[in-house]
Amino acid sequence: MSAPLLEQLIDALRVLPGVGQKTAQRMAYHLLEREREGGKRLAGTLAEAVERIGHCAQCRDFSETELCPTCANGSRERSQLCVVESPADRLAIENATGYRGVYFVLQGRLSPLDGIGPRELGLEQLEQRLAEAEVQELIIATSATVEGEATAHYLAQLARARQVRPSRLAQGLPLGGELEYVDRGTLSHAFGTRSEVRD
Amino acid sequence: MSAPLLEQLIDALRVLPGVGQKTAQRMAYHLLEREREGGKRLAGTLAEAVERIGHCAQCRDFSETELCPTCANGSRERSQLCVVESPADRLAIENATGYRGVYFVLQGRLSPLDGIGPRELGLEQLEQRLAEAEVQELIIATSATVEGEATAHYLAQLARARQVRPSRLAQGLPLGGELEYVDRGTLSHAFGTRSEVRD
Ligand SMILES: [Zn+2]
Ligand SMILES: [Zn+2]
Repeated sequence: MSAPLLEQLIDALRVLPGVGQKTAQRMAYHLLEREREGGKRLAGTLAEAVERIGHCAQCRDFSETELCPTCANGSRERSQLCVVESPADRLAIENATGYRGVYFVLQGRLSPLDGIGPRELGLEQLEQRLAEAEVQELIIATSATVEGEATAHYLAQLARARQVRPSRLAQGLPLGGELEYVDRGTLSHAFGTRSEVRD
Repeated sequence: MSAPLLEQLIDALRVLPGVGQKTAQRMAYHLLEREREGGKRLAGTLAEAVERIGHCAQCRDFSETELCPTCANGSRERSQLCVVESPADRLAIENATGYRGVYFVLQGRLSPLDGIGPRELGLEQLEQRLAEAEVQELIIATSATVEGEATAHYLAQLARARQVRPSRLAQGLPLGGELEYVDRGTLSHAFGTRSEVRD
């Protein structure tokens, strides 16, 4: 006999980040007591999302279509390519700055100990784009963490090898901080005062 | 044209208690990046739960069946009836104490300003059970909040009118605290040293 449905629900909610037993229980009760309609909508949207959302063939961001809206947008500047670690970082830059170029989403950062190397980050694909001559500046917007800096160093080398000018967001990001959580003003300033990467 | 599926998902996740825009976004990305299987399972379980989980006909707790497992259990003591505000409170008592009686779940507490009166808490149904002569003790386990105390007072009067002895969990609950969040030891002690309610 399977566990009661309520226990199954509490257990299933724990898949959410930062949600332990106690919080999952509170969420389940809340949905059943006060938000059945919202719960139903969440169930339907979630089922559809995990089924239909894949990755953009060009920038690797999440997308329902082969190309995401940004890559499909003919009016975005193709000479600037901004590399970010995650879709959340891309969204943060898009919301905080007036950037009109395009993106490349690594979906991670170099971390040899975790088995994450250039292949896992799609860097072959990135090199191809750098080789297409359109790109003049590679804006490296990885996190100000040790792994983020190592990734940035690697990306700058890739760019130089293709005669593309690498740049890095200005100092101002809090050290050790995740880019996604930086406040809008700081992020916008750092983006605007990015500097060319030199050896 | 409807919003992108990812935005719909982030929006739908905000139905969860304590989840704002930023957390919802983090949850959506986490599910899509690392937990698609778990997300699929959550969607299925949630859809089934909001559809199939109703209320026990006897105690008003959540139940998939007409009677919940506790009410359907012939070996539970019918002479003791414990009244709680919520399913979470019922579960907390069940897990922290050795209580072998049955329950009644108010699904709220008296709050005239919010339009929550005796009818909304199913108190007619409770009175019927008190009239059935089996019940000898009504254990009132409402919260140590102003509204919880007012509810307790009301319940004690109901019990006395039916020659049922009302009791209240012992002092020891932190004042103003929600019963659900009391630590196990305090709750168990307070439950064990409950005292009869006098005028
Ligand atoms: Zn794209
Ligand atoms: Zn029941």
